[in-house]
Parts: sequence; structure tokens; C-alpha cells
Amino acid sequence: MTAEEIKRVLVVGAGTMGGQIALQCAIHGLDVALYDVSAGALAAGMGRVRGYASHLTAQGRTTTAVLDHIQPTTDLAAAAATADLVSESVPEDPALKGRVLAELHALCPPRTIFTTNTSTLLPSMFAAATGRPERFCALHFHLPVWDANVADVMAHPGTDPAVVETVTAFARRIGQIPIVVGREQSGYVFNTMLNALLGAALELAAGGVAPPADVDRAWMGIMHTPVGPFGIMDAIGLDTVWKITDYWAGVSDDPRLRANADFLRGYLDVGRLGQKAGGGFYDYPEPAYRHPAFLPGEEL
Amino acid sequence: MTAEEIKRVLVVGAGTMGGQIALQCAIHGLDVALYDVSAGALAAGMGRVRGYASHLTAQGRTTTAVLDHIQPTTDLAAAAATADLVSESVPEDPALKGRVLAELHALCPPRTIFTTNTSTLLPSMFAAATGRPERFCALHFHLPVWDANVADVMAHPGTDPAVVETVTAFARRIGQIPIVVGREQSGYVFNTMLNALLGAALELAAGGVAPPADVDRAWMGIMHTPVGPFGIMDAIGLDTVWKITDYWAGVSDDPRLRANADFLRGYLDVGRLGQKAGGGFYDYPEPAYRHPAFLPGEEL
Repeated sequence: MTAEEIKRVLVVGAGTMGGQIALQCAIHGLDVALYDVSAGALAAGMGRVRGYASHLTAQGRTTTAVLDHIQPTTDLAAAAATADLVSESVPEDPALKGRVLAELHALCPPRTIFTTNTSTLLPSMFAAATGRPERFCALHFHLPVWDANVADVMAHPGTDPAVVETVTAFARRIGQIPIVVGREQSGYVFNTMLNALLGAALELAAGGVAPPADVDRAWMGIMHTPVGPFGIMDAIGLDTVWKITDYWAGVSDDPRLRANADFLRGYLDVGRLGQKAGGGFYDYPEPAYRHPAFLPGEEL
Repeated sequence: MTAEEIKRVLVVGAGTMGGQIALQCAIHGLDVALYDVSAGALAAGMGRVRGYASHLTAQGRTTTAVLDHIQPTTDLAAAAATADLVSESVPEDPALKGRVLAELHALCPPRTIFTTNTSTLLPSMFAAATGRPERFCALHFHLPVWDANVADVMAHPGTDPAVVETVTAFARRIGQIPIVVGREQSGYVFNTMLNALLGAALELAAGGVAPPADVDRAWMGIMHTPVGPFGIMDAIGLDTVWKITDYWAGVSDDPRLRANADFLRGYLDVGRLGQKAGGGFYDYPEPAYRHPAFLPGEEL
């Protein structure tokens, strides 16, 4: 199957990622089924999708008519029967992912390509469970899918190279810049670099070298970006950054990672979870780093 | 002495950094003496300074008249006699820096503040040699000084807090965003983060996860920056990046740093030192990453 032959996409999991992937596919002319296990989760997910569509329509980048091409459903068998490609975005649990993909294998035609959007697991951890390992690889998106339009393609050792090629071309077809990862490893290309940057920023603040605002000021003033590492962490959510940092601190036994996790913990303990909570390293909706005085320009 | 009382600056060392610092001070209304030990080095340095001034004049950001406020000199005694602040940018050798600053101590009036622009050494390594440790700290710039207008202020334990305050205000006066580093440590705020980012990018390429262009594509596509980590390394010079990586690989015995150094070495061995050599990870003057096709935009 070539990428052009893909007409119907089944997105499994209607969370933030699943909803954005569904919308992105619909915008690029595909028919999409958006599945979730509960009607409530599905309704919430479609609410978010409509919000994204309105936002992009206001920017003149699409029209809300694309929503007609997204079919929300809790009937997995019906949606699976006609799917050319599956994009799986269920919670990050290899056993759960394996169960869901095994069920899909029984319901989908043999031609269907399976992709996982996992951001922390390896495709090989549940390749066998899919029942069709040769037609399975990771296709990993970034948020927001339409602006951070880079998608990692990560095969496991058993993926058919022709499938990797089709998935790569499919990514291009839906407006993504595909990055084909050369070997299976924990962490994708962008995330590996972002984690290194955020870890270094946390070390500077946790170690008392400079407070978060000064760290961001240094990065923004030299890189000329609209946000620095601590502003990015506020957007990701400090609970999520803490979870990842705490996990790796445990695995590696690195005292610097432990200090970073403890530093984040101090914010969580007082309810400062980031942008979504109205406050993290900065106060929202008007964080200091968006104010012109934060970064005096050089007026020569 | 307050920052407003600083009228005359002595820049010691007419390399790239010294020349840019001299010009930046002149643009902001200071009288500058630019010293180098040899007439040849001084002439080359002044040639670069005139080039920068023409470039900034073409951008409407200054006029070449500011060059009248930069006095190139090989007469250290005369320049030192009237200096209110010294900015030292001689090669990164603590013994050499100590010798130069000791000589300056004998030549400068007691009021003169000494600053070092060292990027890899600690001020305490040569504070005693200055003869005036309480009036000495690091004031560390980034290239190009007028656009990357962030300057780290790093005191050693013996620096008078009033001097830190004056140097910080002086940085602001010459159009820099000062970042006062909370404690003396190897590495400044921005450089610590940049090194982490570049190291992660090198690991991805050296480990065969993705080639340099794909690594840059992922960073640029999501961060929306005009250049990625490998483009930045080309601008720094791969010989410089190699030197730093090789040094830390030796100190830390980390096999990943060694692999990164060896990966860089492969480019050096075939003369690909970066932008200055016409080629590094990319070919110059038209590197692929500046071409629109490098990063297809998402056209919704």
C-alpha cells in the first residue's frame, strides 16, 4: 500500500494528541474515525477538536467543514473494518497498548498499517502483540501538530522497510516533516534535545546559579525565541516534567536529576503546576516573559 | 565608583571578542582604548572592528563616526593610566591572564575595575594575581555582542559586592542584559544550556539515530528558529567545539562524550572546520538549512 492509497484513518484514543492527529488528517483530506472507549471521553475529545478547528479557521488556515470528515465513535469493530491506517494514542502502558493493538488486529483488514504515537516506549515492546509486527512502527507527533509539524518515524527490527516508506510518505502527505530515526531507542530526536536543554536549565536554577527568569532571559536574549526553558516547562505542565525527571532520577541515581526533581516538587507542593493551573514558574495568563521589559532590546 | 562614572574603558586583546566589546562600548558613548601586544594583531583587530561598524551602519544602527572613540594602542602604560574599567580578553590560560592583570595592576589607578571575559576559567583562578581581587570579577559577553546582548556577571568570593553592582549597571549601560550568576562555577548560564543542547544533538548523530540535517530539521521545525544545533556548531567552528568536547571527554571519561569528539574529529580530518572554512556540517555560503525546501511549512 502506498501513502496515496490511504483514504481512511482510525485514531484510537481521543485525548489531546489523538484529537489533534484526527484533525490534522481531516484537514489533509482524509476520512477519520476517532475512537475512544467511553462516550464521555469521546465527547470531551470532540469538544477539543472543534475548539482547535475554530481556532485554525479564525487564522484562515482551514474551515470548520473539515469536522464533517471526523466520525467520533465507540464502535471499534465498525471503524476498524475500513481503516487503511491506525494511529494509536492510548495511555503509555505497554500492556494496554498491546491489548488494544491485538484487538485491532482481529478487527482490521490485513492491509491496515498500525502506528503508535507513544512518546516514551519502544515499538518492539508491543510489536508481537499487534499480530502484524511487519506492518507496525511508531509515528510520533508533537504539540500542536499543525505548528510543530515534525513527526518521528521509528521502526522496530521487524518492521517491513516498505511500511516505513509508506508511513514516511503518509507523514509528508498530512503536512508533517518526517524524521526517520535510524535505530530503535528510547527518546525521539526533538525530545532528546529538549530534555537535555530543560535538564540543564533546571540544574542552573536548582543549583542556585540563576533563578528561572534569568535562565530564560539568557536563552531568549541570545536565541531570540519568544519563550525560554522555564516557560516551555510551564506549557508542558510541571507535573509531567516532574514525573519524567523523577523517573530518570530513580533509574540513573544521578544526584543532579534528583535535585532537579526536588526543585520541581517544590512547585507542585504549592499547586503551581504550570500554565494550566494559572501559575508555575510564571503567573498566567500574562507571564512576565511576554512583557517587553523582560528582555530589553539592544537599541543601537 | 558608579557605572555612570565610567568614562574610559581599556579592552585588552584585539581578537574577535575584544574588538566587539570595544565597538559596543564606543557605540554607547564610552572612550575606548583597544590594546594588543603586537601591531599586526592590533591592525587585524581594527580591520574587523571597522567591518562590524560598516555592517551596523548599513543596518542604520550606528554610524562609523563611533570609530573615532576607539584608540588602538600597543602602549599599555598610557592606556592603563586613564582607564576606569578594564575588559580582558586574552587567550584562555590562567597563568597568562594572571600575568597580564598583574601588569595592569601596576599601571592602572586604584579606582580601575578589572573584568575578565573568560568563558571557561573561574575568576578565582587569577583573582590574587590581579593585586586588587576586591575590584575584579568576570563580565562575559556572547557573539555577536550587539545581537546576543546578554552578559554574565560572575564574582569570585573576594569580589566587593559594590563592584558587582557597578559592573552589572555598566553592562546595562552598554546595552547588555546582565545575568548575575549566583555562585562561581565553571560555565555560564547560556553556555551551560547551549552545551547540553549541542551535546544531545551530537549524540543523536554520532549514535546513528539521525543525520545532522534531520536533527536540525526537528529542532527548527518545532522551535521555529532559523538555525539548528549543527548550523550553530558550524558558526562556532568545529575545531572549537571539538576542543571543548575532547577536553570534557578526557575529564569525565564519558564514552558518549568521546564518541561525540570522534564524530567531530572526522570532519576536522577532512578540513571541514565550519562556516569559516566554507564547509562543516553544511556547505557555505549557501547552507541547505537556509533553503525553504529544508523545512516545508505546514500549509493548512
